[in-house]
Amino acid sequence: MHEVHEREILEKLREIGAERVLIQTPEGLKREAQELACFLEGEGIDVIISGDINYGACDPADREAKMLGCDALIHLGHSYMQLHLEVPAIFVPAFAKVDVIPALERNLGEIRKLGRRIGLVTTVQHIHQLERARDFLENHGFKVFIGEGDGRVSFRGQVLGCNFTAAYVDADGILFIGAGYFHPIGVALATKKPTLAVNPYSGDALWMEREVERTIRKRWGQIAKAYNAEKFGVIISTKKGQLRLAEARRIVRLLREHGRKAELIAMNHISYPSLEGFDFDAYVVVACPRVPIDDVENWRKPVLTPPEVELLLGLREEYKFDEIVGGKRSINEPLGVAFHGPGNGV
Amino acid sequence: MHEVHEREILEKLREIGAERVLIQTPEGLKREAQELACFLEGEGIDVIISGDINYGACDPADREAKMLGCDALIHLGHSYMQLHLEVPAIFVPAFAKVDVIPALERNLGEIRKLGRRIGLVTTVQHIHQLERARDFLENHGFKVFIGEGDGRVSFRGQVLGCNFTAAYVDADGILFIGAGYFHPIGVALATKKPTLAVNPYSGDALWMEREVERTIRKRWGQIAKAYNAEKFGVIISTKKGQLRLAEARRIVRLLREHGRKAELIAMNHISYPSLEGFDFDAYVVVACPRVPIDDVENWRKPVLTPPEVELLLGLREEYKFDEIVGGKRSINEPLGVAFHGPGNGV
Repeated sequence: MHEVHEREILEKLREIGAERVLIQTPEGLKREAQELACFLEGEGIDVIISGDINYGACDPADREAKMLGCDALIHLGHSYMQLHLEVPAIFVPAFAKVDVIPALERNLGEIRKLGRRIGLVTTVQHIHQLERARDFLENHGFKVFIGEGDGRVSFRGQVLGCNFTAAYVDADGILFIGAGYFHPIGVALATKKPTLAVNPYSGDALWMEREVERTIRKRWGQIAKAYNAEKFGVIISTKKGQLRLAEARRIVRLLREHGRKAELIAMNHISYPSLEGFDFDAYVVVACPRVPIDDVENWRKPVLTPPEVELLLGLREEYKFDEIVGGKRSINEPLGVAFHGPGNGV
Repeated sequence: MHEVHEREILEKLREIGAERVLIQTPEGLKREAQELACFLEGEGIDVIISGDINYGACDPADREAKMLGCDALIHLGHSYMQLHLEVPAIFVPAFAKVDVIPALERNLGEIRKLGRRIGLVTTVQHIHQLERARDFLENHGFKVFIGEGDGRVSFRGQVLGCNFTAAYVDADGILFIGAGYFHPIGVALATKKPTLAVNPYSGDALWMEREVERTIRKRWGQIAKAYNAEKFGVIISTKKGQLRLAEARRIVRLLREHGRKAELIAMNHISYPSLEGFDFDAYVVVACPRVPIDDVENWRKPVLTPPEVELLLGLREEYKFDEIVGGKRSINEPLGVAFHGPGNGV
């Protein structure tokens, strides 16, 4: 169970002078949000909990906070993403307690197959152990590279589902520390380097090659299905950190220049059922890059990413993973509770 | 199929000087929205279609329009609701072509059972025929009352799912013209008068008594299930026309004064699955009054309206339907395409 640092949050709120706050939480921290609300109310703070499911720092509820008369936003579970926020925000990343070293130790043989020069990345859950992991690996003869990452991430070596800039290092292969396929498959697709995922909970190590092949094959399948599509719905998201209006307009223009029809569609949470009533032959998601990749089974129409449209129109040859990049990172997030004023928080 | 008055909309946009618009549509008019987008783009207007499902004028996408750099909002399918909007908005109610008179004629015998003094209400779909219906009924010996309605509706005699103020007239019974149970059950629950719904499509007439009884029985069932609940989630909506923050705070206060725990939850689209991770024993929806009534089967926890909380706490005795009322109506909407500037549109 992750810890929520109640006292520290209260202190930050008092520093800001906030009297009314909105707490936003991912699915897995809802009970912590509820406990935090209870604690803060006991300290005289008015609290509203956001019931909207949150998938990332790309979707801060700062507009909702402002609208509800809140002085501050508490965003649980994710680290800060550089965005212009309308109220002061406290980001409370959830750090996992599991020790990452035993899993690395157990999988040294597999890690060696990456080569001697390895890139090391992880998610925010394990980021506080990245230096320890690096030391451990260097003590075992590896040359470890930890990428800076750009403005979408808070920490060196941190990857998001949509941003692998911290994995763009001059290494033979990439070692990802963390659970599941979601992040390391993205690392492998984006970097095109051998990628090994070491899971600190199970102690397992997984190579991404087969998953990458399977995913790219599926993506080409989507491109093929959209090949003769006439009418494209080009979808943008109103989530602040997913809004890529200029890129969407570029895709609409490209499609129209190539004789296809295209309309811009804006939505908050992107899911196929909401689109069912429209008369489009195919969709392009110019928002979270993971929607077309991970949710494709739920779409009854082909759904592409922007680079896949370029492949479809013959403007690109090699498969490219869609990423959202975010300019230069101008902060180094302190570990733990982190405060960001309204504005870009720099 | 409803008509969308493309030329008229274009004219209004030119009057406003809008160059970029967001089109918002209910599920049933998605293809019309798409055709309208196509038409307007042919006339040099930049268009974005909202893909978010819209259920009413209580949820205008004016904030989204502003955020996306649009000069105007086109809201299809519903008539204007007095709200402070952030961009100029064009409301395009969808008027049904079906003639309402034959169904009235066919059901004169049933209508007579309402008494001689009848209140006459309908939805925006048939509002353009309300005067004809009144004349027809008066020619058949009825004294017809058409209520003013308040600021939430655009037309005299118009009801919404959450507002039956146009049915509050000094009559023996209420005649509703329109399809389905959704509106007339609300009329009957709110007015507590005999209510007959005449469906102009099928020609059928339905008495609401049995439905009302069934609904009230179910509502008491919910109240009973919540009787020993300790922790209440009191839900507000961030949809502009459903936000009842003061009322929600009143309910939180009432619950706490009576020894229950209560937390405020804010969400956009209210549905139980988003709430599943919380640890509440029961919920109160202080947003769209129809959510607890019509969606109750999908909730695994008891879900109440604000008056039902008063019943639960013994502060009220008689069942009362939750309505959102909206102050005095200060406009009389012209039929057809209607323009409202930013602000309260008065």
